[in-house]
Amino acid sequence: MVGVDDRCMMIARFQPLHYGHFNVIKYCYEKFKEVIIIVGMASQSHTPENPFTAGERIEMIRETIKWAKLPLDKLITVTLPTLEVSRAAVHYVKLYSPPFKYVVTLNPIIQRIFIEEGYHVIQPPIVERGNYRGTVIRKLIANGSDEWKKLVPPPVAEIIERIDGINRIRMLYKEKLPGYYVTV
Amino acid sequence: MVGVDDRCMMIARFQPLHYGHFNVIKYCYEKFKEVIIIVGMASQSHTPENPFTAGERIEMIRETIKWAKLPLDKLITVTLPTLEVSRAAVHYVKLYSPPFKYVVTLNPIIQRIFIEEGYHVIQPPIVERGNYRGTVIRKLIANGSDEWKKLVPPPVAEIIERIDGINRIRMLYKEKLPGYYVTV
Amino acid sequence: MVGVDDRCMMIARFQPLHYGHFNVIKYCYEKFKEVIIIVGMASQSHTPENPFTAGERIEMIRETIKWAKLPLDKLITVTLPTLEVSRAAVHYVKLYSPPFKYVVTLNPIIQRIFIEEGYHVIQPPIVERGNYRGTVIRKLIANGSDEWKKLVPPPVAEIIERIDGINRIRMLYKEKLPGYYVTV
Amino acid sequence: MVGVDDRCMMIARFQPLHYGHFNVIKYCYEKFKEVIIIVGMASQSHTPENPFTAGERIEMIRETIKWAKLPLDKLITVTLPTLEVSRAAVHYVKLYSPPFKYVVTLNPIIQRIFIEEGYHVIQPPIVERGNYRGTVIRKLIANGSDEWKKLVPPPVAEIIERIDGINRIRMLYKEKLPGYYVTV
Amino acid sequence: MVGVDDRCMMIARFQPLHYGHFNVIKYCYEKFKEVIIIVGMASQSHTPENPFTAGERIEMIRETIKWAKLPLDKLITVTLPTLEVSRAAVHYVKLYSPPFKYVVTLNPIIQRIFIEEGYHVIQPPIVERGNYRGTVIRKLIANGSDEWKKLVPPPVAEIIERIDGINRIRMLYKEKLPGYYVTV
Amino acid sequence: MVGVDDRCMMIARFQPLHYGHFNVIKYCYEKFKEVIIIVGMASQSHTPENPFTAGERIEMIRETIKWAKLPLDKLITVTLPTLEVSRAAVHYVKLYSPPFKYVVTLNPIIQRIFIEEGYHVIQPPIVERGNYRGTVIRKLIANGSDEWKKLVPPPVAEIIERIDGINRIRMLYKEKLPGYYVTV
Repeated sequence: MVGVDDRCMMIARFQPLHYGHFNVIKYCYEKFKEVIIIVGMASQSHTPENPFTAGERIEMIRETIKWAKLPLDKLITVTLPTLEVSRAAVHYVKLYSPPFKYVVTLNPIIQRIFIEEGYHVIQPPIVERGNYRGTVIRKLIANGSDEWKKLVPPPVAEIIERIDGINRIRMLYKEKLPGYYVTV
Repeated sequence: MVGVDDRCMMIARFQPLHYGHFNVIKYCYEKFKEVIIIVGMASQSHTPENPFTAGERIEMIRETIKWAKLPLDKLITVTLPTLEVSRAAVHYVKLYSPPFKYVVTLNPIIQRIFIEEGYHVIQPPIVERGNYRGTVIRKLIANGSDEWKKLVPPPVAEIIERIDGINRIRMLYKEKLPGYYVTV
Repeated sequence: MVGVDDRCMMIARFQPLHYGHFNVIKYCYEKFKEVIIIVGMASQSHTPENPFTAGERIEMIRETIKWAKLPLDKLITVTLPTLEVSRAAVHYVKLYSPPFKYVVTLNPIIQRIFIEEGYHVIQPPIVERGNYRGTVIRKLIANGSDEWKKLVPPPVAEIIERIDGINRIRMLYKEKLPGYYVTV
Repeated sequence: MVGVDDRCMMIARFQPLHYGHFNVIKYCYEKFKEVIIIVGMASQSHTPENPFTAGERIEMIRETIKWAKLPLDKLITVTLPTLEVSRAAVHYVKLYSPPFKYVVTLNPIIQRIFIEEGYHVIQPPIVERGNYRGTVIRKLIANGSDEWKKLVPPPVAEIIERIDGINRIRMLYKEKLPGYYVTV
Repeated sequence: MVGVDDRCMMIARFQPLHYGHFNVIKYCYEKFKEVIIIVGMASQSHTPENPFTAGERIEMIRETIKWAKLPLDKLITVTLPTLEVSRAAVHYVKLYSPPFKYVVTLNPIIQRIFIEEGYHVIQPPIVERGNYRGTVIRKLIANGSDEWKKLVPPPVAEIIERIDGINRIRMLYKEKLPGYYVTV
Repeated sequence: MVGVDDRCMMIARFQPLHYGHFNVIKYCYEKFKEVIIIVGMASQSHTPENPFTAGERIEMIRETIKWAKLPLDKLITVTLPTLEVSRAAVHYVKLYSPPFKYVVTLNPIIQRIFIEEGYHVIQPPIVERGNYRGTVIRKLIANGSDEWKKLVPPPVAEIIERIDGINRIRMLYKEKLPGYYVTV
């Protein structure tokens, strides 16, 4: 049976999944027998910062792994609702995931709270982040540029187009009535 | 009995109700037998962006309808707590309201998520929005100008004065200690 | 304008609305200019104890008032999500409703917490409660008896039949897998 | 790409996973290209009714699938926090999962709310449920009987023993101080 | 400065505080420099199982300590809202309290989850529990017996009488309309 | 027994406790027999605006009182989770605290909502606030300056150094990926 030492955990929002995430996933795949990927803020969608649903993000992850010819059977997906940031949140992750020892992340806050709780945080090989950032990608889409397609793996671009994600993001960025969009 | 086809739903925060909202309400009244008005973010009040309670906002709606000599018996009020924006939120609206087929709103995000769930979204006749916006009105009040009174129906101005809303808003805008006001 | 003294508040779950509720509503209608009816546990439906949605319950209230030839324009509907029972809950009611002075209810707990917060609690004229209870009615429906129809106003029976509520309740009472039904 | 028509969804609490669940999983595996398994009440553990964490339940699912020599790459795991039962809950499932058309479940309430929202609910071939029930298994464990091991796939028994689940359940059943255990 | 080794934590609902709790508190006072007392389910009150508010329970604790001539300056009070029981709940306790190493409790579930997270759980000297139980006391009060006064320290009886807690409990036990009392 | 008239309540986030807070605490100590200090947003930590846990903040309060040679036995600590700002929040405070009549605060919003609910709000003697503000202090720490140590009582500086709070804050301010840090 696969044990605690054989698993690493990666957490992100994947809004959308880009080559920055993909590099971390590849790194985890090389080093570990099982890779737990946690889709954060799963309870939110259709906002400028979180346009895609958790389900759409799971599809991006799975299709990217297939496209990269990595084995899907090493992947464990977990969906975590939006939480207040706090050290206790580590323990929701612990509760929702099969046991793991290693955490791979670039986010300094996530690194810190997992270190404070005794996890092994691994720094993946530094890759130039450049534009591999969700905000950059969402803004490119909102502005009508096609440049974003170079920043995400091909199946992600395909999913975004299939679900009409481009219009969704444009609309979400268009008229940000103050606080309003939080209503419904 | 009034059926699904005879009802339309309008959702807003009404902070406060202004002529922009009133035009949509009038339009709904002309076209439908029953008008469901949902007071969004009902669980929030006393913040710069949501100064009025849900109860105060229901009063604004009812008194405006009376003032306009429209029949109150066509109105159905529903109060919806603050939610994360997501497509699932549509279904809270569905759960809280008698069944309806039509949605009337100017907000593109609300339009989008209701369209994605199969509702008929109706665009009300385009009226110049101009200053008919909650933010503009709250800022005018905070700055001590009386110009806001031209932007809301007379009973709304009367209610705001009766509950000393002007001082409430001024205070809420005055010293916005960072994050502090979220405490209590 | 209608003031605090002219309004009374009634709160119940209305699962479903029965003649016990109706008597209280009639009493409120006789005594006050406006009647605030709060649909409690609005966020719950499709359980043995709360089979109907908040929207379905609002329809029951409105259609019963029409059937009784009482004026709908005196009615103010408010929907309140499920809360932990506590004295603070009074203040959610306060926040969600236009201001009111009088509370009409038969439930001793609701009476107590509103008295502790300074409201005037009115005892409606004692009517023999007998079988005018939600539990009794839901059990009659679940057991296949037609006796429940005598316990609710005609429009309520009509609504329950139209939405296929009889089968819904039967199914909800049939196989109560332990805790299971709380899952989805 | 795998589409809506190729996926079915199964939801359960898996406290613990037993042969009843396993039969449904096998059925889904035969009929569909991808199987979404939703671990319900993921936010709860260490209670008499929900002794295992969501992570432990995911392990039970994956190890059972490996043991049955079924391909893990067809499996999509999703974790859903405890929700009030309501039709809106369907939409959390929708939000958290890649799109699917078919629902396989034996629970009549889950069947009903998914049918009301337009899903295709499939009845798996009727297998004698008998003692294949979480409650029966947890009680057998609490009472010190070994009979429960016949009701769950071998890897589930192994996991329960490895995490000392037998003592956990016995303790949880031992002294159920009223409401107390809800405290921490 | 007082350190981790000098503090123990005790958690209970204190509905109401009785001699069972008092014995644990005395034991903690003898052994440690600071005693953290966590009032659990602080967000609930006015139910048959949790009749008293968190504030009333803090008063019971402080007045009992004064009455026992123990020093109040060793006491640290913390109020914790109602949580789902889960191992993650340990971490809310951790987040809300100054750091501590020792846990003193008689409740086996609390013992278990703190042991699983690496705390030192201390068994206080076994005192005959007998009727030193919240349920027993609340039932005695509801039934009109005065026997409960022997089960709680004198200041607790005094507080309960001052806040008219006897009538509150009697009313809460009287007519337990099904689920109803959860509404408000 | 200490009564309602002998207690005042002070609420703040204490991120971290500074001389501004300390002046209010001293003022309360002079005027009242018991001082209720409510740690607001207790459920949040490890964010740029709320870096410290509730437990760490309780330690800051207690150690500062000891350092000032004020008696700890007059202090009552209460921890309140993050709430939406609303008038109903007053009632959570009411529910969580022993009864009090006086509120001492410099925050205008807190003043307003407590005045609207009938409390006596006391303005502490005006002290030059200057840099005695959480934001200022957190920014100084983030920027590597040592000036912040002059703004907080010595035990607070000691606690922050002991828990390595300086590095925690620097990291939290370093790379604020948009919304990201809300994930875990």
